[in-house]
Amino acid sequence: MNNYRFKIQYDGTRYHGWQRQKNGSDTIQGRIEQVLSRQMGHPVEIDGAGRTDAGVHAREQVANVHLDYNGTTEELRECLNEYLPEDIRILEVEIAGERFHSRLNATGKVYEYRLCKKGCFDVFARKYQWQMEELLDVARMKEAAGLLLGEHDFKGFCTKASRKKSTIRRIDAIDIEETENAVILHFFGNGFLYNMVRILTGTLVEIGTGTREISTIEEIFERKERVLAGMTAPAKGLTLVRVKYD
Amino acid sequence: MNNYRFKIQYDGTRYHGWQRQKNGSDTIQGRIEQVLSRQMGHPVEIDGAGRTDAGVHAREQVANVHLDYNGTTEELRECLNEYLPEDIRILEVEIAGERFHSRLNATGKVYEYRLCKKGCFDVFARKYQWQMEELLDVARMKEAAGLLLGEHDFKGFCTKASRKKSTIRRIDAIDIEETENAVILHFFGNGFLYNMVRILTGTLVEIGTGTREISTIEEIFERKERVLAGMTAPAKGLTLVRVKYD
Repeated sequence: MNNYRFKIQYDGTRYHGWQRQKNGSDTIQGRIEQVLSRQMGHPVEIDGAGRTDAGVHAREQVANVHLDYNGTTEELRECLNEYLPEDIRILEVEIAGERFHSRLNATGKVYEYRLCKKGCFDVFARKYQWQMEELLDVARMKEAAGLLLGEHDFKGFCTKASRKKSTIRRIDAIDIEETENAVILHFFGNGFLYNMVRILTGTLVEIGTGTREISTIEEIFERKERVLAGMTAPAKGLTLVRVKYD
Repeated sequence: MNNYRFKIQYDGTRYHGWQRQKNGSDTIQGRIEQVLSRQMGHPVEIDGAGRTDAGVHAREQVANVHLDYNGTTEELRECLNEYLPEDIRILEVEIAGERFHSRLNATGKVYEYRLCKKGCFDVFARKYQWQMEELLDVARMKEAAGLLLGEHDFKGFCTKASRKKSTIRRIDAIDIEETENAVILHFFGNGFLYNMVRILTGTLVEIGTGTREISTIEEIFERKERVLAGMTAPAKGLTLVRVKYD
């Protein structure tokens, strides 16, 4: 019995998110478990580091699973890729320590949100970006992003905050990269709440288009009310880039 | 009456190529003419610089059309983009000289062919690349590419060569770029025959995997027979990058 660690890449466009659902919706976790279960001859459950929403993509999601498998890691990887659809790929299979858990051991995550500038197009990235209808003031967005850094209670920046679990998170950096056609937000943090990156993005976009004041960021932190923050940016512009471990 | 010059970007995946067809197949030219004709209230025909095959993409195709249109170039661009499907975008509309013809005046073209290395994946580029099943010897490919440069009769490297028209073309450069996951071939030339870039790519890939000798290139030039060259690489890996004018 080995504890296998997978690096997984997917285009989330046609899936109902990462997490397996009881109603039988098509999910990335569900697809991988289906192939593994058929291969092993018994039900297999995997753990993923990040529960990406419906329509969100991943460049390097991490998951782990305990399997009684006789082949090599490369054979396991090839077998999975043979039976998985082409919008889900296993990039890497490694044997991890017995106690490794992809979600519980994760110490950081990197997300990327891609905004396509007003009047610009990128046909090849059209499923992985949010098309802007207004001009963005990137300097204003950078100033606002600075206020989001550090440890805060991000309750106002998430959907369905649990009363029991902590909504305190730490954002280490938000790098805002501007290219000819796009503005790309790179979020580095120790963890993100449900919809948090999308709400942060929606808020930063409203600041960038000038429909929101930078000072509202402090108000959202103080009052911790979801309605004060910006819209939830569309899922398709968001990609889980990397999961960090110590 | 103005002569409008368009820069057009498209994902060719679901189209039967650039050129309008009599059988009513879905083509990029057909789509654009349909929108323009509806807008103008009479049939409109446009001229494209390169007749990309079914499944081939374009980053910057060029086309021109004579129109009696009262609005600004920006209004024309916005109107077209509003009615075109999201996998075809008009990047730019400009008023060109009266006698400008996108195809006849073109002095050069740049094409890109993307090969995804064996065992590597890029889910987000999966529709724009050819997945290799064998390792590529890039140094060998570069050596072979050098033999293709300059002016030659490329009759052996094209499909359905016309007996009347010249099959002599000049290739100025073939840059072969290697990234972590991909090998990207950049072709610069004064013009390319039907299927020529795909057959050159298929030939270079066979050389890269070792199933073909570099010396066969000279034999294909001498004997000018299509059967001597390599396979036609799949359309989906090919993109028309740019059309050059003096």
